[in-house]
Amino acid sequence: MNIQQLERQVIVPNNDFIHKAEKLKPVLHETIVKPSHIVSVKADKNYIHGWRVDSISSASNLINNEYKKDDSFILDFGDHQVGYLSLNIRPAGSPPDAPLKLKLTFGEMPVEVAEPFENYNGWLSSSWLQEETIFVDVLPTSIQLPRRYSFRYVKFDIVDTSPKYRVVFEKVECHAVTSAILQNVQDINHHDLVMQKIDEVSIKTLADCMQEVFEDGPKRDRRLWLGDLRLQALANYETFRNNDLVKRCLYLFAGVPDNKGRVPANVFISPKLIADDTYLYDYSLLFAVTLYDYYLETRDTDTLKELWPTAFRQIELALDRLDENNIVQDSSDWWSFIDWNDNLNKQTPSQGVLIYTMKRAILLAEELNVKEVEILKIRLKEIIEATKKYLWDEEQQFFISGLERQISWASQIWMVLAEILPLEENKLLLNRLLSEKPSIGISSPYMYHYLIEALILTNKEEVAIQEMKNYWGEMIKDGADTFWELFDPNNKDFSPYGSHLINSYCHAWSCTPTYLIRKYNL
Amino acid sequence: MNIQQLERQVIVPNNDFIHKAEKLKPVLHETIVKPSHIVSVKADKNYIHGWRVDSISSASNLINNEYKKDDSFILDFGDHQVGYLSLNIRPAGSPPDAPLKLKLTFGEMPVEVAEPFENYNGWLSSSWLQEETIFVDVLPTSIQLPRRYSFRYVKFDIVDTSPKYRVVFEKVECHAVTSAILQNVQDINHHDLVMQKIDEVSIKTLADCMQEVFEDGPKRDRRLWLGDLRLQALANYETFRNNDLVKRCLYLFAGVPDNKGRVPANVFISPKLIADDTYLYDYSLLFAVTLYDYYLETRDTDTLKELWPTAFRQIELALDRLDENNIVQDSSDWWSFIDWNDNLNKQTPSQGVLIYTMKRAILLAEELNVKEVEILKIRLKEIIEATKKYLWDEEQQFFISGLERQISWASQIWMVLAEILPLEENKLLLNRLLSEKPSIGISSPYMYHYLIEALILTNKEEVAIQEMKNYWGEMIKDGADTFWELFDPNNKDFSPYGSHLINSYCHAWSCTPTYLIRKYNL
Repeated sequence: MNIQQLERQVIVPNNDFIHKAEKLKPVLHETIVKPSHIVSVKADKNYIHGWRVDSISSASNLINNEYKKDDSFILDFGDHQVGYLSLNIRPAGSPPDAPLKLKLTFGEMPVEVAEPFENYNGWLSSSWLQEETIFVDVLPTSIQLPRRYSFRYVKFDIVDTSPKYRVVFEKVECHAVTSAILQNVQDINHHDLVMQKIDEVSIKTLADCMQEVFEDGPKRDRRLWLGDLRLQALANYETFRNNDLVKRCLYLFAGVPDNKGRVPANVFISPKLIADDTYLYDYSLLFAVTLYDYYLETRDTDTLKELWPTAFRQIELALDRLDENNIVQDSSDWWSFIDWNDNLNKQTPSQGVLIYTMKRAILLAEELNVKEVEILKIRLKEIIEATKKYLWDEEQQFFISGLERQISWASQIWMVLAEILPLEENKLLLNRLLSEKPSIGISSPYMYHYLIEALILTNKEEVAIQEMKNYWGEMIKDGADTFWELFDPNNKDFSPYGSHLINSYCHAWSCTPTYLIRKYNL
Repeated sequence: MNIQQLERQVIVPNNDFIHKAEKLKPVLHETIVKPSHIVSVKADKNYIHGWRVDSISSASNLINNEYKKDDSFILDFGDHQVGYLSLNIRPAGSPPDAPLKLKLTFGEMPVEVAEPFENYNGWLSSSWLQEETIFVDVLPTSIQLPRRYSFRYVKFDIVDTSPKYRVVFEKVECHAVTSAILQNVQDINHHDLVMQKIDEVSIKTLADCMQEVFEDGPKRDRRLWLGDLRLQALANYETFRNNDLVKRCLYLFAGVPDNKGRVPANVFISPKLIADDTYLYDYSLLFAVTLYDYYLETRDTDTLKELWPTAFRQIELALDRLDENNIVQDSSDWWSFIDWNDNLNKQTPSQGVLIYTMKRAILLAEELNVKEVEILKIRLKEIIEATKKYLWDEEQQFFISGLERQISWASQIWMVLAEILPLEENKLLLNRLLSEKPSIGISSPYMYHYLIEALILTNKEEVAIQEMKNYWGEMIKDGADTFWELFDPNNKDFSPYGSHLINSYCHAWSCTPTYLIRKYNL
């Protein structure tokens, strides 16, 4: 379990930026969704997490059922939903002579309504598990649950009524919300139905994460992370084109730098804008990359001008971490995300992110015609040379990372994306990676995205498509309505948190296939 | 476990009466009460239910404490409260990166915050156990819990925060409510401090049960029962003198008779006035007795005139149940309350209630100068004669009840109150009862009240005082802030429900000592 917690964090808010972000707050669009079926969840080892869903009847039959103490049922809303639950409850039998005690459990996946939350023993807070126990003193009643949930399934446990009455559930509805405008997305009618489906599920994933900010996961974390934002923004440009939401998110980060000018890895927006006390080497750099992508898409020079100093400051701070050989210093107490893998050495992939960022920053600096372009170019040249000299293992023909000279997928992928080697050598490097398969692999869809980008960059579209089908396609086969935070086709119970119950099954950084398909005509 | 449930109940509402009751709805007065102490509850077999309360510190220290996952604490509000809880929660440490999961458990008695509700296995609905599990997505926050609780102690279980933050609780308050006006009560400054204290606790009990109706228990049931109303009204006349609340309750019962004219044993007032489908022989008769008491107190002739037909109808229906010998028919399928004792035969005590009621009804009929007075007098004479002939056991010198000729306390008490025997014989009967102590004893304070009334009626004030001290005084020694629904000095774990967790520890029918003390100058 790794968490970053600062004793002393000094934020220097930029109220002008914060105000701009506030003005860009999007409208949430609401859709009323009714459950489709009453279902049962049965143990079956042939299904993901060991749980199979069977339909019992249409959900329209619900109003005919009277439930008593210890009864339970599960509603299937037919697809992933992010929103608010409302329902009416009426009594049957004698006048209710005791409150109704009702437990509701919300699941993105069948496992969440099958395995008791009481057994959860992961290290992330159990408070993320979506459940409510409510007492109803007066029946009949209409209930609008005040919290937002992310779910497809809702389990109703009638914990207690009284021996004298039963309850009937009517008008159970989800008021689904998103700031995405679905009509803005163009149909692609992909000839390959697998790719068509991958595109659709990507778009649904992105839509469900698009709320007042680009959230990382509508079930868990529910906040704006920089690394996720970069990928969501790319997918958004190809689909919903809500570019103001990207702009808003950039201003939110730029609004709460610390006293060194660092932007945090993530921000909270309630009860007000708050910078988390987590700072990540790669995520800070991705601020500049996200600004670059945004500018390429919008040509919004005003925003570029205003946010350039923030972007450049992240690079300055990243450069400060280089050692005398121009290599990112590795140590036990620094933080760079790269991938969800505690065994991964972050030095070389972070060096790759730095170079990747500097190349884009130079283009922005040239566009702006600012003096920083010179120093960026000089430093980039030095850093690339150092990278080749110190991080390339000529014998093994791989980039190595850290004191133990680790060979990881992440190092090779980021070095390919940083385009240090010529295209042909990059191709050979990727071939070698795919054939030799170093053991320090890819843990998250986030890192998987950059593998696909690297494949496309080296003209390996066919391999890219196959990898996408192997990865996101396999999630769909396993029942994904939206793409998951974490997926290992070889270990489908994988969770870095100690329990697959707490994994997010609609996660921003998984939404990029639609970008890859549409941008590169895959 | 006994419950009454009717397949077919036809209510003939009297909208004029319902409207009158509605117009008499009282204002609830709110008092803000702060907790006095942070306490611990420790196992100690010398205390009631085996739990002792120790003070840890003043509750004003609460704001200095930061709580994390799995922490808990108990607040003591210093006295019994009926009301709404509000509190502020602020985070300490890093920005909260997960919801707060907080469990609150409310206890009238230490046992309720000491023994886990999960272990509850009684036959009354577990939904009465006062607890809430709440999730707080955004901190800091102000919370006003929407439900009303009845409690002295509140246990806070911080189920989860996250490893990055803790929580601080501020401004924890109870908004206590009652329709009683405390200033209306005159001080008595009783020379006997035990009686003084019994009087005070009685008044507190009554006040906490006085809400929009005279509730039976503010924790459990929370509704208007006829038998309880009669006793509350008596206590009210000597203390708060909120006679309109008695009037309102009489109209509520009279507003929802069934198609035979029977008034229900209890009514619900939310979401609207609803007659429960429970009918009790003795409680229906007590409608007439309550009207009699009310008229004696208020001389409100209009109400008497309007409600007389309802009162008389209960007597007609009760008379219909007499057999050819003019004795209340016993059977396995009828319902008369009398006391909380499944072993008690209800025949003879019910016959006592009937005679007791008819005597008062005759006085009302004379006051009204209505023709029913004649038939009442004729029938009363016949019934008294029958009672002496069939229910009095000359050999044993006790009233017997049922086929098995049961000798119970309840039979003797109600027959004394019915004044069938001359005063001197009544005295001897009570002496015999107190010395021979038949095994079918008294289970509830409700029946205990009528014992004391019987003692006073036979001029045994000293015995009455001693019995009150033995009973209600013993409750106070055991820590009663308000008098309990159930108390057996010889079996302090007694519960007719299978668990002392679900007993009510502020219960209307226990509030009568103030009436007895003040009315009879005890």
